Amino acid sequence: MSIAIPSFVQIIEFVGTFAFAISGIRLASAKQFDWFGAYVVGVATAVGGGTFRDMMLGVTPFWMTDSIYLVCSGLALLWVILFSKYLIHLHNTFFLFDAIGLALFTVVGVQKTLDCGYPLWVAIIMGTMTGAAGGVIRDVFINEIPLIFRKEIYAMACVIGGVVFGICNWLELNTFITHGACGLSVLLTRILAVKYHICLPILKGENSPKNSIN
Amino acid sequence: MSIAIPSFVQIIEFVGTFAFAISGIRLASAKQFDWFGAYVVGVATAVGGGTFRDMMLGVTPFWMTDSIYLVCSGLALLWVILFSKYLIHLHNTFFLFDAIGLALFTVVGVQKTLDCGYPLWVAIIMGTMTGAAGGVIRDVFINEIPLIFRKEIYAMACVIGGVVFGICNWLELNTFITHGACGLSVLLTRILAVKYHICLPILKGENSPKNSIN
Amino acid sequence: MSIAIPSFVQIIEFVGTFAFAISGIRLASAKQFDWFGAYVVGVATAVGGGTFRDMMLGVTPFWMTDSIYLVCSGLALLWVILFSKYLIHLHNTFFLFDAIGLALFTVVGVQKTLDCGYPLWVAIIMGTMTGAAGGVIRDVFINEIPLIFRKEIYAMACVIGGVVFGICNWLELNTFITHGACGLSVLLTRILAVKYHICLPILKGENSPKNSIN
Repeated sequence: MSIAIPSFVQIIEFVGTFAFAISGIRLASAKQFDWFGAYVVGVATAVGGGTFRDMMLGVTPFWMTDSIYLVCSGLALLWVILFSKYLIHLHNTFFLFDAIGLALFTVVGVQKTLDCGYPLWVAIIMGTMTGAAGGVIRDVFINEIPLIFRKEIYAMACVIGGVVFGICNWLELNTFITHGACGLSVLLTRILAVKYHICLPILKGENSPKNSIN
Repeated sequence: MSIAIPSFVQIIEFVGTFAFAISGIRLASAKQFDWFGAYVVGVATAVGGGTFRDMMLGVTPFWMTDSIYLVCSGLALLWVILFSKYLIHLHNTFFLFDAIGLALFTVVGVQKTLDCGYPLWVAIIMGTMTGAAGGVIRDVFINEIPLIFRKEIYAMACVIGGVVFGICNWLELNTFITHGACGLSVLLTRILAVKYHICLPILKGENSPKNSIN
Repeated sequence: MSIAIPSFVQIIEFVGTFAFAISGIRLASAKQFDWFGAYVVGVATAVGGGTFRDMMLGVTPFWMTDSIYLVCSGLALLWVILFSKYLIHLHNTFFLFDAIGLALFTVVGVQKTLDCGYPLWVAIIMGTMTGAAGGVIRDVFINEIPLIFRKEIYAMACVIGGVVFGICNWLELNTFITHGACGLSVLLTRILAVKYHICLPILKGENSPKNSIN
């Protein structure tokens, strides 16, 4: 029998994809998108980062080999259609799902890049892209300035996770501990950042820089 | 002699590329783009979807092996420059060209993906992307919310065409009938959708979901 | 010893990357981005064009094999953080750096595409994309209509440089002269365009073309 009970990682991955898709679909709904548009934004949020990672690594985008990610995004759409009025009360639940997804996507991105033979600094970038680029694509689609460039620490949590991954590798710890430490450091950083509203400093701009350089 | 009389498919492809490029160039002109900017938006509308498809499939983007697509977009620019004031009266003609282009691009996208050995569900996505993603890129360039996420059925017509393609394949019909049935179903869906203003349901949003999840 | 003194081209490339990153970071700062967001916009401006070029050519994006580009963008961020109030007086310096970067990126893009075995017209497009696409990505990230679609001649300078490259190749001039002539023609075109405010004609739009074609 080839259909197996889903592993722990697969369940986490499902939860993360679901949470990411929900975040895209909800923001799309605020802009009066139709069901199809909302689904596309949901899918792009969930798989967009990993797709760019895989195109840069020169491998087939991961969602093209397993339909689970699109099915999962479809369930997220159904969920929002049926239960949208109750979603607002699940704010904390979705925040946690989103943070778990971010942590797992980072681990997957870093590991996959190292497996392709790239150095650690490329892997950290790819891990961060896997976790955070989907949200940037989402915001481009709904025509807003990407939220992660201005709000609480988000992508930096992935960078921290990537550095922890590298330290564990350097200490020659086993894969299980390395992945766990990387994922937990992303999760913790993200939770602490939101709980204490930790933001990176805002870059202070000059007036009308637009006329200066193009 | 290697320069041949263009085949029926090539003529249709030319018409579709022209119509897609016109749609990009006209929207760019409404935003005061210069000729170069308008040309870039026209090209991106015409070849953008197929380019992302080919990058995901891991093959060379189709327009890099045949200059006809860029020449055709150039003719579209010339057309708009010379005849822009008459274009408004050709609304129905361009709508039909655009729908024909959408139909053909879908057929090409589905077939190419199946030829690369991917399953039908990937081919349907790639067919839809070939037809509809160019319009999304166009709207990102002109800084508007993508029209196809909110207006009459557009990308869904490609999905329907892809499903028809799959049914024909399953019935083991020959290539000619399969392509014809797929293309016609896209064309018919699109024409009926616009004639009767058939839209997908709008996703009803909560208030200010932006503060809920990032 | 494998660590060598940087070559002339490497110094120019560093200067160009620095200037491109500065342009992204300054525009990001005007939109209240945080340090991370500004860095991402800076990197995307500097390496975005070459990254799309490399993905289309089917090779590994250039910045993944040498960390200098990301380090250089990091120095640009540091520069803006420390000296932002003095930057406004360096307008002409940065314009020149930016033009030098544009020239060099064009040369690199054309040569790399020809090396991959593509015809000249593809190489000209790729050279233009290497030079100008980063600025488009930058403007999409900060949610503005891309500046190069509306302002003084910018991307057209790359096209002119590419044509000069092709003429030199056709005359069988050596690589050094070819690269120099290509780069200088980009630089001169750009300087003259800004000095004399040379713009391409604006495409005159119809009213509300949005309702015409979608």
